[in-house]
Order: sequence, then C-alpha cells, then structure tokens
Amino acid sequence: MKRILYAVAVLCVAALPAAAGSDQQTQQMPEKMSEKTRGCISCHRRYTPGIVADWLASRHARTTVADALKQEPLARRVSTGTAPDGMADVVVGCYECHSLNGGKHADNFNHFGNTKINVIVTPADCASCHPEEREQYGRSKKAHAYGNLMANPVYHRLADIITGVKDYKDGKLVTAEPTLTTRMETCLGCHGTKIEVRGIKDVEPAGFQITAKVPDIVGWPNQGVGRINPDGSMGSCTTCHARHSFSIKMARDPHTCAQCHLEPDVPAYEVYEEGKHGNIWATFKTDWNFTNVPWVPGRDFRAPVCATCHNSLMTTADGEVIARRTHDFGSRLWVRLFGLPYSHPQPKHGDTTVIKSKDGLPLPTALTGEPATDGTLIDVAEQARRQKDMKGICSMCHSTAWVNGHFAKMDATVKETDAMTLTSTKMLLDAWGKGIADNGGLKDPALLFDEAIEQQWAEHWLFYSNAIRYSSAMTGAPDMAAFKLGWWRYLRNLSDMQDRMKFHKK
Amino acid sequence: MKRILYAVAVLCVAALPAAAGSDQQTQQMPEKMSEKTRGCISCHRRYTPGIVADWLASRHARTTVADALKQEPLARRVSTGTAPDGMADVVVGCYECHSLNGGKHADNFNHFGNTKINVIVTPADCASCHPEEREQYGRSKKAHAYGNLMANPVYHRLADIITGVKDYKDGKLVTAEPTLTTRMETCLGCHGTKIEVRGIKDVEPAGFQITAKVPDIVGWPNQGVGRINPDGSMGSCTTCHARHSFSIKMARDPHTCAQCHLEPDVPAYEVYEEGKHGNIWATFKTDWNFTNVPWVPGRDFRAPVCATCHNSLMTTADGEVIARRTHDFGSRLWVRLFGLPYSHPQPKHGDTTVIKSKDGLPLPTALTGEPATDGTLIDVAEQARRQKDMKGICSMCHSTAWVNGHFAKMDATVKETDAMTLTSTKMLLDAWGKGIADNGGLKDPALLFDEAIEQQWAEHWLFYSNAIRYSSAMTGAPDMAAFKLGWWRYLRNLSDMQDRMKFHKK
Amino acid sequence: MKRILYAVAVLCVAALPAAAGSDQQTQQMPEKMSEKTRGCISCHRRYTPGIVADWLASRHARTTVADALKQEPLARRVSTGTAPDGMADVVVGCYECHSLNGGKHADNFNHFGNTKINVIVTPADCASCHPEEREQYGRSKKAHAYGNLMANPVYHRLADIITGVKDYKDGKLVTAEPTLTTRMETCLGCHGTKIEVRGIKDVEPAGFQITAKVPDIVGWPNQGVGRINPDGSMGSCTTCHARHSFSIKMARDPHTCAQCHLEPDVPAYEVYEEGKHGNIWATFKTDWNFTNVPWVPGRDFRAPVCATCHNSLMTTADGEVIARRTHDFGSRLWVRLFGLPYSHPQPKHGDTTVIKSKDGLPLPTALTGEPATDGTLIDVAEQARRQKDMKGICSMCHSTAWVNGHFAKMDATVKETDAMTLTSTKMLLDAWGKGIADNGGLKDPALLFDEAIEQQWAEHWLFYSNAIRYSSAMTGAPDMAAFKLGWWRYLRNLSDMQDRMKFHKK
Repeated sequence: MKRILYAVAVLCVAALPAAAGSDQQTQQMPEKMSEKTRGCISCHRRYTPGIVADWLASRHARTTVADALKQEPLARRVSTGTAPDGMADVVVGCYECHSLNGGKHADNFNHFGNTKINVIVTPADCASCHPEEREQYGRSKKAHAYGNLMANPVYHRLADIITGVKDYKDGKLVTAEPTLTTRMETCLGCHGTKIEVRGIKDVEPAGFQITAKVPDIVGWPNQGVGRINPDGSMGSCTTCHARHSFSIKMARDPHTCAQCHLEPDVPAYEVYEEGKHGNIWATFKTDWNFTNVPWVPGRDFRAPVCATCHNSLMTTADGEVIARRTHDFGSRLWVRLFGLPYSHPQPKHGDTTVIKSKDGLPLPTALTGEPATDGTLIDVAEQARRQKDMKGICSMCHSTAWVNGHFAKMDATVKETDAMTLTSTKMLLDAWGKGIADNGGLKDPALLFDEAIEQQWAEHWLFYSNAIRYSSAMTGAPDMAAFKLGWWRYLRNLSDMQDRMKFHKK
Repeated sequence: MKRILYAVAVLCVAALPAAAGSDQQTQQMPEKMSEKTRGCISCHRRYTPGIVADWLASRHARTTVADALKQEPLARRVSTGTAPDGMADVVVGCYECHSLNGGKHADNFNHFGNTKINVIVTPADCASCHPEEREQYGRSKKAHAYGNLMANPVYHRLADIITGVKDYKDGKLVTAEPTLTTRMETCLGCHGTKIEVRGIKDVEPAGFQITAKVPDIVGWPNQGVGRINPDGSMGSCTTCHARHSFSIKMARDPHTCAQCHLEPDVPAYEVYEEGKHGNIWATFKTDWNFTNVPWVPGRDFRAPVCATCHNSLMTTADGEVIARRTHDFGSRLWVRLFGLPYSHPQPKHGDTTVIKSKDGLPLPTALTGEPATDGTLIDVAEQARRQKDMKGICSMCHSTAWVNGHFAKMDATVKETDAMTLTSTKMLLDAWGKGIADNGGLKDPALLFDEAIEQQWAEHWLFYSNAIRYSSAMTGAPDMAAFKLGWWRYLRNLSDMQDRMKFHKK
Repeated sequence: MKRILYAVAVLCVAALPAAAGSDQQTQQMPEKMSEKTRGCISCHRRYTPGIVADWLASRHARTTVADALKQEPLARRVSTGTAPDGMADVVVGCYECHSLNGGKHADNFNHFGNTKINVIVTPADCASCHPEEREQYGRSKKAHAYGNLMANPVYHRLADIITGVKDYKDGKLVTAEPTLTTRMETCLGCHGTKIEVRGIKDVEPAGFQITAKVPDIVGWPNQGVGRINPDGSMGSCTTCHARHSFSIKMARDPHTCAQCHLEPDVPAYEVYEEGKHGNIWATFKTDWNFTNVPWVPGRDFRAPVCATCHNSLMTTADGEVIARRTHDFGSRLWVRLFGLPYSHPQPKHGDTTVIKSKDGLPLPTALTGEPATDGTLIDVAEQARRQKDMKGICSMCHSTAWVNGHFAKMDATVKETDAMTLTSTKMLLDAWGKGIADNGGLKDPALLFDEAIEQQWAEHWLFYSNAIRYSSAMTGAPDMAAFKLGWWRYLRNLSDMQDRMKFHKK
C-alpha cells in the first residue's frame, strides 16, 4: 500500500509542475545548509520571513554546487568548473553569497559582532559560480547604463531638465539640479545608482527591541541594471532574477523586462503584448515550462518571449543548439533601434561614452542621421552575421520566405523612421535658424530641450520612431504603429510644430 | 481498494486548490439550503443560471453561519458573535440576504405575490454577519464617495464641466447640465449613485412568457463604492466582492482595485504592474494562495498585492499578527497622495466635506499648498504611528535600512511634487492676473476649468503629481515617473502653458 | 495494482485539464497520419519544429473528420455533412490543408519536385470541413476589411496622410505615397493585405545546405482579417485561430481580439479589462474552460469574454440554446459604434463601399450625423430584434430590470456622443468657413486631415466618441470614459481647438 501511495504522490507531484511550470517548492528547511547560514536563518525567519520563504522556494536552497556541476553541460546552470571553497557540499544560502570578497566591499560590516557580511551581493560575487554570465553581462550596455547616461553630456542634460524641480519666477521657468531621490525614481531606477557607503549607522527594526549597526548607504535601495556597486563592480543580477528566489522563470517572464521597457519611450512590452507572439503567450503561458535548461521551442513553449530571442540557451528536442545563452543583451542584435534619434549599427562595446558622431556630438549619429565612422560601431559583415543567426531562431517556427519577408519589411521601416526623424530635425533647425526657438548656438546645454518645440522634436524620435521600429521588429503591433505612438503621432506632432512656429512668428 | 482510491482523490483534490488558489467548487446544490432559498433557485437556475452558478462556487453556498462561527478567531470570516435568526444552520442563500431589513428598504417588493425581498443587498444587510467590516467601511472615504464629490462645490464644478454635453454656438462652447446616465458611466461609476425608487414597473424577461412586477429604480445598475442605498446605507460590498461569488480571492486581486484606480488620474494599477512587486506577482501569482485567512506572507504569497498593504489580516507562519484586517481603506495611511493638488495628512473621517482650507476653499489644502489646520486632518503623532505600522508590513521581506531608505525617498518626492504643483499654480495665477485667462474672481464656478490653460493646471496635479507620488510610494515605476505621466509631462505641460500665455498675449 | 495506478492516472489527468482548461497535449505523433503528411513532418520536425509542435498540440492532430462527424450536433466543430475525399480516416495534417484547391491558388508550387502545395491556406480551403463558418465570415465586415478601407476615398485619404513618409521643404510638409511595408505594419496589419504572386524565387533555409524554390509573394507575411488571398478568397482564419494550433481557446481569449481592438482608436480590450466582466475574468480565468463546445455559462465560465457576446454557441447546462455560433462578427449587433464620426444602424452587408450618405459622402452618416437612407443599413425592426437577442445573453446572469437599465443607459450615451461629435464638427466648419483651415471646398482630398485642427476633429470621434461608447456598451469603464479617452479629452480637445482658432486669427 505504501508503495502505491508513493506512486500516487509521485504522479500528482510530477503532473503539477508540468502544468504550472513553477519554481514553487516546499517551505521545508534544506538539510545541507552551512552552519553559518543556519545561524542567519534562525533569526531572519522571524525578522524577515518573506526573504527566507523566497529563498526556500529557490533552486539555491535545494542544490549544492557539487550537484549543479554533475549536470550535463547543456543543462548546467553554473559556468564555473569547480565549486568555490567550502561551497561544494552545502546549498547556496545567505552566508555563502553575502560573505564573498568582503575585503573589496565598502559595505562589509560586522553583523551583531560575530559575522562579517556585505549588504549587497554583486555580479562579482555571483561570478564565483556564474563567471561566464558575469563576463558577458560586463560587456553589455546594461552594465554600463549608469555611465552611459551620466557621463554623456547630451543625455545628462536631457535627464537634468526633465527631473529637476522647476520654479516660476518673473515669468520664467527655472530648473534646479535634480535630487538624488528623484533621479533614483526616474532615470536611475532603470539605469542604476552609484552606491556609496558613508559609514555605519544605527537602525531599530520594527517590532524588535534591539538596535543594529549597519552600513549607511547612499543610492540604496536600487536594482538598476548598471548599478555601480560598493565593490566597484557594475550591474545588478537582481534586476531580472529578483530578490531571493533567483528565478529563471522570472527572468524569462516578459513582465520582468517590462519593468523598464515600457511606453512611451521604450514600448517593448506593449508591442509584444499586442502582437501575435504576445497573444499566443497570454493565452497559453500557464501551460508552458519556463524553467527548463536547455529550453526547447515547441516542447517547452510555443511562441517566443523576450528571452527567447535575446538571451536563452535553446536546443531542439534532439539537443541540437539553436542559440547559445548570453547575458550580453545586445550581442544578438545588429541594429540599435531605440533611445536615440536615428537607428545605427550596434556599438561594439557596452560603454557608449567613447562614441563620437561626425559632427562632433557624443552620439552614435550626426544630427542629420549619419552613423559614426570612428570604429566604435559594428561593421556590415558583423551586422549580417547577427541577422543571420537571429533568422535561425525565427526559423524554428517560420519558413525561410516568411522570415526573409519579415526582415526586409523591418529594414524598410527602420529607414522610413530615420527619414521621419530627419523631417522633424529639419523643422527644428528651421525654428532655430529663424530665432523661433533658441539653442544658444548649441554651446549652452541649458538651452537645449527647454522649449516646447524642442521637446516635440525629442518626442518625435524618443517615442514615435522607437514605437514604430519596435512594432516592426517584433512582427507587428498595428495599433501601436498606426495610432497609439506611431504614424498618427508623427502627423500630429509635425502639424502641431508647424502651427507653433506660425504662432510664435505672429 | 476503496480506501486507496479515496486517498488518491484526496491527494489530487488537495493538490489542486493549492496550485490554483481557487474558489472554484463543484456546481452541486448544497444540502443545507433554506426552503425559501430552494424556492428562489428552482426558478432562477433556469431564469438566471449564471447567478446561481456564481453562488454555488461561493463560500456562502457551502457554509452555515454556525459552522463559520466554529473557526478559530483569526481564521474567522464573520465578525458577528451569534448567527442571525434562522440563519445558523442553513447556508447563506438568496433569501437569507435579499430578505433582510425589508422595512427599511424602499426597494422591498412582493416577488410574484409570495415572497417579500429587496433588489439590492446593502452593507447594512451584510452587517448581519459582518458588523465589524461594515463599521470600518462606514468610516472610510470610500463609503462617503458620493457626498465627497457631489456635495463639494469645487469637485462638483469640475465634474460638471467635464461630463456635460457641449454645444458650439456663436463661436462659444456652452455646457449643459450632465445627465444621470453619463454621470453613472464616469464619476459615479466609481463614486456610486444615489439610488431612488420611483414605484413599481412591469418587466418581461427575455425568453419567458411572463410579466413581473419589480421596483422602478433610478441610478441602477451601479456598484460604486459610495452608493447611497435604498435603505439609506452607504457603500457597496459588491464593488470588490463582485456579484454572487463574494470572493476574497477577487477582493485581493489587483484587477479589482484597477476597476477605478487607473490611468491617468489614479494610476495605481499601472504603477503596481510596472514595479518589482507587480512583476513578481505577474510571474508567480498562479502558484499563490489568495483565499487563506489569516494570510501568511512567504507561505501564501511572495510579493504584496494591494490588499496586503491596505487591508488584509496577516500573520506570520507561527500565528503572530502582522496587521489586522481593515475595511477602512485609508486607515493604514498617513499621507493622502491623490485626487487633490497637494498632498496632506489623511482626513480623520471619511466624510471630507467638512474640511476647509486656510483660504476658505472646501479643500484640505490652500491654493498654494498649506494643509488645513481646522482639526479635520490627522496630526503628526498619528501620521508617525501609521507609517511605523506600515514599515512593519514592509519588514516581512525587507531590512530596516532598506525600508527606512524607501520611506525617506518617498517623503522627499511628496515634497517635490507639491513644489511642482505650486509652480504650475503660480503660472495659472499669473495668467489670471494678466487677464490671459478668466476665473471670474473665483466667484463664479462656471468660469473655473473652462479654459485650456486651467485644464492644463488640473492635469499637472491630477495626473502628473499623482502618478509620480504613486510610483514613489509603491517602490518604483521608473517609466511612469519619468516619461509616461511623470517628470517629462511636468516639463511639457509647463513649457506648453508658457507658450500658450505668449500666444494669447500676441 | 495496475488498475489502481490506471485509476490514479485517470484521476490526475482528468483533474488537470479541468483546472487548466487547456488545449495542451502530448507531443506524440498521431497514428492516423496520411502518408503525405508523414512525409512533410519527417523534414519539418527538423526544419520548423515549432510548427510541428504547435500542430501536435492541436485538435486537428488527434481527430479524423469521420470522428468529428460522430459528435452530437451541438458539440460538433465541423459543419460539413461529409468528410472531404481522402480525409475521413486521417487526422487533419499538413498535406490535408496545404494541398486543397491547388488549381485556384496562384501560390501553388511544386515543393522539392514531388508535392504540389499552397503556401497559404485560405478560408475557401478551411470551408472543406467548415463551410458554415466560412459562409458567415464571408458576409462580415471583417472579410471585406481590405476593400472597405482601400476602395473608400475618405478612409483611403486618411490612411495615406497618416502613413506616408513626410518631408519638410520650404517651410511645408510634403507627404509621399505610403509604402506597402508601412501599410502592412499599420492599416493592413489588421485589415489585411492583397496577396500577389510574382513568380518563383530561391530561398536558402538557415542552417541547411540546400536551396528551395518557393513562390515570390507580395503582401506576405500577413494575417489581417480581410486579406485578399491568392485564390481570390477573402479573410484569414489564422487571425484568431493562430498558426498551427487552430485553437478555440485562443479565439475565445480576449488577448486575441486585442491584437487589433486597442487604444486609442478601438479601445475594446482596455475597456473590457477595466470593467467588472474583465475583472472577474482576470481573477478566475485559469479556473475556467475555454474549449468546451457547446459553451455553458456558469459551468464553463462566470463572466463573458468577447466571444461570449459576439460569436460563440452557448447553451444552458440542460442543452437549451442561448445563442447560435456565428462568424459574422457584426450580426448580433444593432448599432455600429466605432470607426466613424457618428453611430448608425449596422450595415446590412460586410461590404460597406456601397453606402452613400445624404450629403453624397461614401459614409454611413452625413457630416452632420444623419444616417444614410439608401437601404444599406438595417431597419428599426431588425435593430430591435438584435438588441432583444443580446438581452437574452445578458439575462443568463442579470435580471430583466438590470438589463433594461443597462441598454437604456447605452442608448442615451450613444446619442450624447453623437451630439459631442457634432459640436466638434460645427467648430471645424466654422474654422473652414473663416479660412482658419483649408478644406479646398471638400474637392481635393489632399487638403483633408493635413492641418492640426482637422486632426483634432478626427481624434474627437475616432478616439473619444469611440472610447465612451465602448465603455457604455460593455457595462462600464469609468476611468476610460471620464479621463483616459473620454469626457475629459472631449473638453480638452474643444478648448484647445478654440484656442488654436484664436491664435490662427491673431
């Protein structure tokens, strides 16, 4: 009888994860916890039970590094060859991660006098077991997102005039320097903050009669993709593998990308949701498996999500590799579609501050659209190679003629949106030339983006060109491309800019 | 063998609700129905089978009040001490609810000559078993939402100019008094209608060869939160516990709050969905349990939904209370963030018509932002107490330093958005002062909000200040706060107001 | 023991589909495949494994037509009386569909020299087993969506000025003829393309060392509802029954309708999601059954989705028919709410190019709102009949008084939105009359919609009137109707048009 009931349980349990594709697991304490981690949990299961529960639901709580290394290469989720010291035979718990490389961490502190730990676990720490992922990520624009924004005078100027508190004095708007708090909730919410440790401070946990000494950290809390960490490393794994569940299911869920890639400036999620791929996903996703490694199109899912095309390791059911895993998010892409007035070949490296346009701007294209020729962007051959590889992914479900037709259409749309940005630019240049708007000879950044017509120009490319290109790239989002943030907005914007110039002249 | 199969069934059934977190149940008729309810259902299972199915899926259809009272106090879903007359040993069916307090109900009628029932079941009726919930709700701003809008001259004026049909005559826009139908589909869709019974009328049910006499009700159908009911009570339980399933799962689902708390004026749902909490919810929600009482963070869910922070009874896995249940929706909050130009301390009572600002407006702040000092808002000590309690909820998953950092950031953002509202106000005052716009000396409400620049001022606080404060309060929605309805819109709006003033003067 | 385990398996399997309501099936090859289809799959499981997996998950892969015909009439998913030649005893595989009516298909080609197939399977092909569905669809506005847009001079003009690339020359905007690629990503993304075959071309499948000869097709890929197919037929079944899973679950999922019926011009999905029906759906949908035929309200679902009111066959639990299945999407509707300035009775036929207004425009209403009286619209009696039938659907869950109240409210709102369109029209006529805007005496279509104030007029009805009517029709979406795209936008738009006229005159 026992064996029968056991078989029953196995059947039920085996059936459920298949249906739910879930990371959810029991909340039992793992046997193979380190003594140090056991100590952490003995307090934290009362103090922050949500974190502990999150961790108990994670793969980290039920796998030792030694076991992880026993997996077949393609199924392996660690990229190290050997387990870090002392971590081979214990599950990956609190202490295993929060104690790493303490000497490099400005946020290392003595926790209640008996344990030295870091507040923030960084990509450099995760690299103990995941070195390839960290190395790839380090090359990505995401890792460099803080500097790419804050060290580029044009972007910095745009960010500052947007987020600085304004006052109205003597009929004029005056913009103050943005505060760190507002930067953290806007630009740096996605780009990441620069973390600084000011010293040690006392905190009094709610509901406990104690005082704890903890590092006093500036720019925290933050999970932006390009966070500058207290050990000097760049990036944040928790942006996508959130909190203590470190879930691949979450990283593969489009809602995760949608934390930052949203209307109106980067409407990737809305475009995806509107299109056929998103439609199939929305209908069937609860039946799919978002945790398998490698990931098998057809078997595990039947329409791509973001990670399918941009990141994940995929094989056929027979184990043939379709695409290798990458955490360098732009590395499968040949053309850069968003965030800038004109499209251009992808930068060679994630640090884009080195790029200079022909007309001397710190941008990948000139004001009239020509891509930089300073060797910082990938060449035509590399563009072709990447597009070909991407076609290989599409070809899992689409015929060659279908795929070729799709990319030819996208190429045409990229050109048309560049032409439409140029039209808006010509109008702005006309307004500047006629003294209708004032750019200070492009010498005083404070005079850029401060007038309504200059802001309309920015919306032209930042909102509308982006939205249309995304719709094209993701095989279609007709309402987005036509009315919501697309061609209708182009028309409205240009007509309104024209009226505005007329009214200013009168 | 039988026992084995029984065990199998138990295992399967036990497993499924855990996976689905579902209220869904069989559609079998309960044994313990009252005779009266059995009568209702004998016709209505043919006439309105959807309602009957909805009820059969509910807890009301499978629980007697006597059984409900046997639960441990923390697990109890009723707050009465004793079952109402005749209801102890039957499930809570049609007649049990629709026959209550008939003498007070203007909508009480004789249904086919043999049963006196009410059309509308009100909070006063639900209070038969749920008196605490009704009492709490009665103190909330939600319960007073009808009067707070319709009896406040400023809000009423704003509502009227928005929803009145306009005509264009002799080059001028003329606004008619709004119709009840349009009020019901806009403001009163959320705020609730004032229900009035005009008499009795005949109706002919589709597909049946009968005529029925039923009350002729004005302002119906409506499920707004502050509905004035035909028994004089205020509110509508069905706003959140919709229709006849009376589901706690639905009340805890963010989509329920999103019926009213949406872009552009109250973008709570969009902010939640964009942020990390919403991201975790979207990824894992099908694995969570939304019906357990008490609700245990970590065990039942791993990221907060709206109800977690605002309403639900929560305990640790060991039964320690983290937060008590409340149906007074503002009672955990210290600062009021939305719906008004400036933030201010929460009102002491849900009826906000009693509040007067320093400058004599029926608003909680003066036109230049100072909170009312007439004793109608909570004091600093109460604000501190509530913020501390909220920190206790956050602390289930976040460290003290993290939580303190979050709230310090929010405090700063609330101040900045108030400053940004003031800047827009200064510009409007300048336009009024210079005769560019006409406010009739603030004496004729018909001259408020009727000009484009006045409407831009309203958008400044009603859309943008709200959206930024929500993004801050809910730990981040960077696209919302930066571009969608945030700081970019502030800049665009002020620049456009400035141009408009210039064009008017020319 | 075996029997016990079998029972266990049955229980588990029986339980899961009920919970998931899923089409998902095993990925095992069906036994009853035709030899031809077996040939297709032997290559395509390597070449396009996603398509094969999609098909394996479909009902087509596990049902022969003979078996499908054995179903009780109401449960039948085929409407043919007899199986097409050779298809009775095999599952419906690649060759069964792609080989049909080859002589009529301009896209018929010899695939690798041994099999003649068509690239595109059309409604005329699907009609082999589903003739009623095709016939109904053929009468719908969806089937005629290409011609209704492209052969109507007013709509065509609007589409062209929106989607044509613009240049700025000598202070003027110049609009080029739109490209086919941009048309495909905007208007024709939903309306469908006109497919043309130019000949045969070579393609080189990614990852394979071969060259294949395939038809060179213009206007492809496309899944618009009114696609003109290479066999001359109109429409695309894959718009809603996407790709190779041919899923009824997908066709019934609101996300499917949301591919085209989205903000800002057709905000059906957003209105649905915001309303009570959408709220219940979002909360409980994973517990519902979206595949049963016939579909039983209460048993299979507890709130309507799009298909409930517009398309699906529904019966009571006792098998009484509530509504018959239709693929003529407008045939249950009495009034046409969207896409045009004013509401009007539904057209009698899906081809709307035959309609002429009183003032001679190719529109169903005059510029001032009077419906066409040329006999192309349904009459009052037919309108009444359809509204009565719709009430029958609502009555599954709502009382007669409730339903009557809802439709009276909707009738009033339709009239008010027509009045609001007229107000905006009066303003535009005034602007034209005063020479503030130029319509070229309505003789040169190039002068329509090219000025900002004309575009504001278009937004008035295309965005705001539509959104408010949808909100009303779907029982309420108060934020949409009040602020997002509703009465607030009406007010803002009219006030801004008024200012614009003033600034132009100065």
